[in-house]
Amino acid sequence: MKIVIVGASGTIGKHVVAALKKDHEVITAGSKSGDYQVDISSTESIENFFKQVGPFDALVSTSGNAHFGPLSALTDTDFRKGVDSKYMGQINLVLIGQHYINPKGSFTLTSGSLAIDPVAYGSAVSSINAAIDGFVRAAAFELENGVRINSVAPDVVEESPAYFPYFPGHIPVKMDKVAQAYVKSVLGHQTGQNYFVVE
Amino acid sequence: MKIVIVGASGTIGKHVVAALKKDHEVITAGSKSGDYQVDISSTESIENFFKQVGPFDALVSTSGNAHFGPLSALTDTDFRKGVDSKYMGQINLVLIGQHYINPKGSFTLTSGSLAIDPVAYGSAVSSINAAIDGFVRAAAFELENGVRINSVAPDVVEESPAYFPYFPGHIPVKMDKVAQAYVKSVLGHQTGQNYFVVE
Ligand SMILES: NC(=O)c1ccc[n+]([C@@H]2O[C@H](COP(=O)([O-])OP(=O)(O)OC[C@H]3O[C@@H](n4cnc5c(N)ncnc54)[C@H](OP(=O)(O)O)[C@@H]3O)[C@@H](O)[C@H]2O)c1
Ligand SMILES: NC(=O)c1ccc[n+]([C@@H]2O[C@H](COP(=O)([O-])OP(=O)(O)OC[C@H]3O[C@@H](n4cnc5c(N)ncnc54)[C@H](OP(=O)(O)O)[C@@H]3O)[C@@H](O)[C@H]2O)c1
Repeated sequence: MKIVIVGASGTIGKHVVAALKKDHEVITAGSKSGDYQVDISSTESIENFFKQVGPFDALVSTSGNAHFGPLSALTDTDFRKGVDSKYMGQINLVLIGQHYINPKGSFTLTSGSLAIDPVAYGSAVSSINAAIDGFVRAAAFELENGVRINSVAPDVVEESPAYFPYFPGHIPVKMDKVAQAYVKSVLGHQTGQNYFVVE
Repeated sequence: MKIVIVGASGTIGKHVVAALKKDHEVITAGSKSGDYQVDISSTESIENFFKQVGPFDALVSTSGNAHFGPLSALTDTDFRKGVDSKYMGQINLVLIGQHYINPKGSFTLTSGSLAIDPVAYGSAVSSINAAIDGFVRAAAFELENGVRINSVAPDVVEESPAYFPYFPGHIPVKMDKVAQAYVKSVLGHQTGQNYFVVE
């Protein structure tokens, strides 16, 4: 299987690469790193990226970021950082990628458990995660040629200690457990699912 | 109670006005209609609007639209119509409005049942509805001075027959039932809730 991973060099992405590369052809991508460069906040960059990569069987995105900060100071500009990057960046990987993916292929996006389990300072992130999960639930029924789509919604992960103070009482998720949710999406047969990954 | 309703002239909004105006001071608004004009897709327009309206006890939004169409033809431009209008328009009513609302006031936004119960052609709408619901769940814990926030997520309503063909098997919701969900949000004491309204 030819599996494209956007965000392959990241905290989560590198574990997804490790879990899949033993048995599959893994193509890595990032805005600065990887086999191919793509800026998910640009539709032009995404279009060029798929043209270069050619047909593929699975696209995994472990990329995108969103603003984390107090609601009382949150502005449209802050909020739109995540809208342009994590939200529309990942949506556009699907809207454009659907025209390049092989039949029976799959898309796997990353949201996060804040979608349903919010913490202070996370209003924008929670909203954007929920938006990705909602898209996945709806788009699954419309993708053609047996193409599937799921999202992975991890709690804070063990290799991101900088976030721990903002997640009181959350048990950081083991990297292998997170990686297996992506494996389940790519190699399993389910579609339209949001895989919440918590310890 | 001084209640501001953005989208007051709309299919849903006019029933919310009718349900609340007997016992409360209702200020109506729309981009072209109402006591005040505001374009929710412009932060400058929203800022001017709140300056003109002055302090208020409740803001209800029954405004905003999003693109409805097949996933296979969906583009970033289509998707962003709803992001700029229904999604960020309503988010910005809260981000800006939080600095004008009275203590113990409330915000009530409109999402839609497609957030959890998708139909064909609804990928963008489902995603945007879920984004609004996710924001509400998270922002509720951070709003200050006892300010509350909820969303109303109606199924297709009885006075929107043009949508019926796209909602097979959905029983259109009675307008009074929809209006009561907004009354529950404004006059009740709950916060962080998504009120799904189905028959
Ligand atoms: N870490 C956590 O605890 C956690 C928990 C839940 C959800 N998440 C979500 O999981 C995703 C990955 O998180 P992470 O902690 O692994 O992030 P990370 O370590 O910062 O890695 C981000 C990855 O995405 C790539 N990237 C960044 N901007 C990009 C762009 N504009 N276009 C294409 N690629 C881009 C980076 O490569 P380049 O440097 O080459 O661009 C890198 O490979 C994010 O959406 C995050 O919100 C993380
Ligand atoms: N109808 C349904 O079956 C249904 C079901 C579920 C959810 N919803 C959601 O409920 C909301 C209202 O739906 P509706 O059917 O009542 O819509 P509608 O009849 O088209 O009414 C829209 C209202 O919003 C105002 N408006 C439009 N654009 C605006 C802008 N940029 N800034 C400020 N106000 C604006 C309009 O007034 P002006 O003309 O003066 O701008 C009007 O009062 C929408 O978010 C819709 O997605 C509807």
